[in-house]
Amino acid sequence: MLVHGGSGSPRRGKDGELGRRQGLRTALEEGRELLREGRSAVDAVEHAVRRLEAHPLFNAGHGSVLTSDERVQMDASLMSGADRSAGAVCAVSRLLHPISAARLVMERSRHVLMASAGAEAFALAAGAEETDPAALITHERREQLERARERGEFGLDHDDPSEDAKDDDDDEHGTVGAVARDRDGHLAAATSTGGLVNKLPGRVGDTPIPGAGTWADDDGCAVSLTGQGESIIRAAVAHEVDALVRLRGLALEQAASRALERAKRLGGRGGLIAIDREGRFATPFTTRALYRGWIAADGEPVVKIFADE
Amino acid sequence: MLVHGGSGSPRRGKDGELGRRQGLRTALEEGRELLREGRSAVDAVEHAVRRLEAHPLFNAGHGSVLTSDERVQMDASLMSGADRSAGAVCAVSRLLHPISAARLVMERSRHVLMASAGAEAFALAAGAEETDPAALITHERREQLERARERGEFGLDHDDPSEDAKDDDDDEHGTVGAVARDRDGHLAAATSTGGLVNKLPGRVGDTPIPGAGTWADDDGCAVSLTGQGESIIRAAVAHEVDALVRLRGLALEQAASRALERAKRLGGRGGLIAIDREGRFATPFTTRALYRGWIAADGEPVVKIFADE
Repeated sequence: MLVHGGSGSPRRGKDGELGRRQGLRTALEEGRELLREGRSAVDAVEHAVRRLEAHPLFNAGHGSVLTSDERVQMDASLMSGADRSAGAVCAVSRLLHPISAARLVMERSRHVLMASAGAEAFALAAGAEETDPAALITHERREQLERARERGEFGLDHDDPSEDAKDDDDDEHGTVGAVARDRDGHLAAATSTGGLVNKLPGRVGDTPIPGAGTWADDDGCAVSLTGQGESIIRAAVAHEVDALVRLRGLALEQAASRALERAKRLGGRGGLIAIDREGRFATPFTTRALYRGWIAADGEPVVKIFADE
Repeated sequence: MLVHGGSGSPRRGKDGELGRRQGLRTALEEGRELLREGRSAVDAVEHAVRRLEAHPLFNAGHGSVLTSDERVQMDASLMSGADRSAGAVCAVSRLLHPISAARLVMERSRHVLMASAGAEAFALAAGAEETDPAALITHERREQLERARERGEFGLDHDDPSEDAKDDDDDEHGTVGAVARDRDGHLAAATSTGGLVNKLPGRVGDTPIPGAGTWADDDGCAVSLTGQGESIIRAAVAHEVDALVRLRGLALEQAASRALERAKRLGGRGGLIAIDREGRFATPFTTRALYRGWIAADGEPVVKIFADE
């Protein structure tokens, strides 16, 4: 099982580094515990992502970044490799755990993706936990929005198509995700995010899109992305990893790196975690760092951030 | 250049067949005229889809199907093969031409996909044409919703995961789309839809998702889908066609059929139109019919519906 907590260019030893490392470790240990009990890969990735959504230092659930109109708007998706069933929600604000809402869409509706108020109404009727959107906002995210506004980042923009300016801010790409293989050899992937700081209301990134930010197929691999969502969509990165493994016969590590490079060539950096049916895994990233970790059926969790760890 | 107006199992000679044939023909002729003038493939597919959105007999724009709460909620996307730039809107109601809103997202924002009220606000501020949502509703669509309700189709459903029951209704899959190759050899794809009859508010299908219902890459092909959107997402059909051409070296026709079969194995029928850089094209479908047509740089438009035409 693997988890990630976003990619970017954090400074070493900065505030929150230890807290994030601990958050990833807890998510890994608890997810692994479920797998040991014989629970499914879907259960494990949902649980791990719930843990990270609840953690205020990651950009998902509580602690999500703010839109240009100072609200939280979250996206999440989940996919099961056994039958490629999938569920996703986008642009939701009233749900405490978007990843669990995505699972409700997968299991309790005939649909895959639901948006905004309709998604919230469906998920709440199906038993999802409601939250006051304001309760998801942390003090740090308000300050971050102010800084983004001062730097003129994002929003409607006709001036500077370069994405380089954003590489200084690790928190922008603090999307969380998990991939797992269970006892029966089934794969699953889950991803959840608050999206981009200062994004236009209604903007949806790669996270809730099967094929872009999330993919799971027992015949290929399970993948969860973080990074500059627009380029990830335009490169269909998660499905490209799967296609390179399934159609081209590449090793997972090579497929994962090559697919991620496709997004980078479009100007978008990021990182991903991937696992295949044999339990091989890869954690490539084109940013300076990727909050990432993995744990085997036995053994201690491994958590890394920087490239040289 | 190719267009489609949805897939399904229409009866021969039923009301609207001639009108739909004429609608496809007009879209083809006008799109080809733009290409002849030296305009881009993006211009041509946007124009053709606007024509089909304006046509009340297709399930897109004016004449879209109704949700379970009797509203119109539309999705659209557009992608340019030259640089794989893309734009999309989902779950919008106030926009006269969702495909043009998708183009505004592509060209006037840094984002790819925008949802609901946020998408509407962005598009209207950027110059999209507004409409009263009620003005998009036709009498026929109200009657169709009543029939769907009587048959208990769609909505929240725990009973019958089979999709077979829906195969009798052609109008459900009346999504429209276009793919084109321009004078410079660039490809583009555009797709627009009102979605599924009696869908839950907020449900988003494959149409606005690059990689699922729409894809364009000059190195591969341009694809536009129609059909059972959930299965198309879970099979990433549009990107799978491209991957089979690009990574596996399959001929376009073979790639298109194989990718569509992937969705059928998940229970979802549909059809697609695809074109590659050499101007080869394919129009496979796993339904009984696909409203489809094509036109060359010179020559008459060809429009077909049934398999034996």
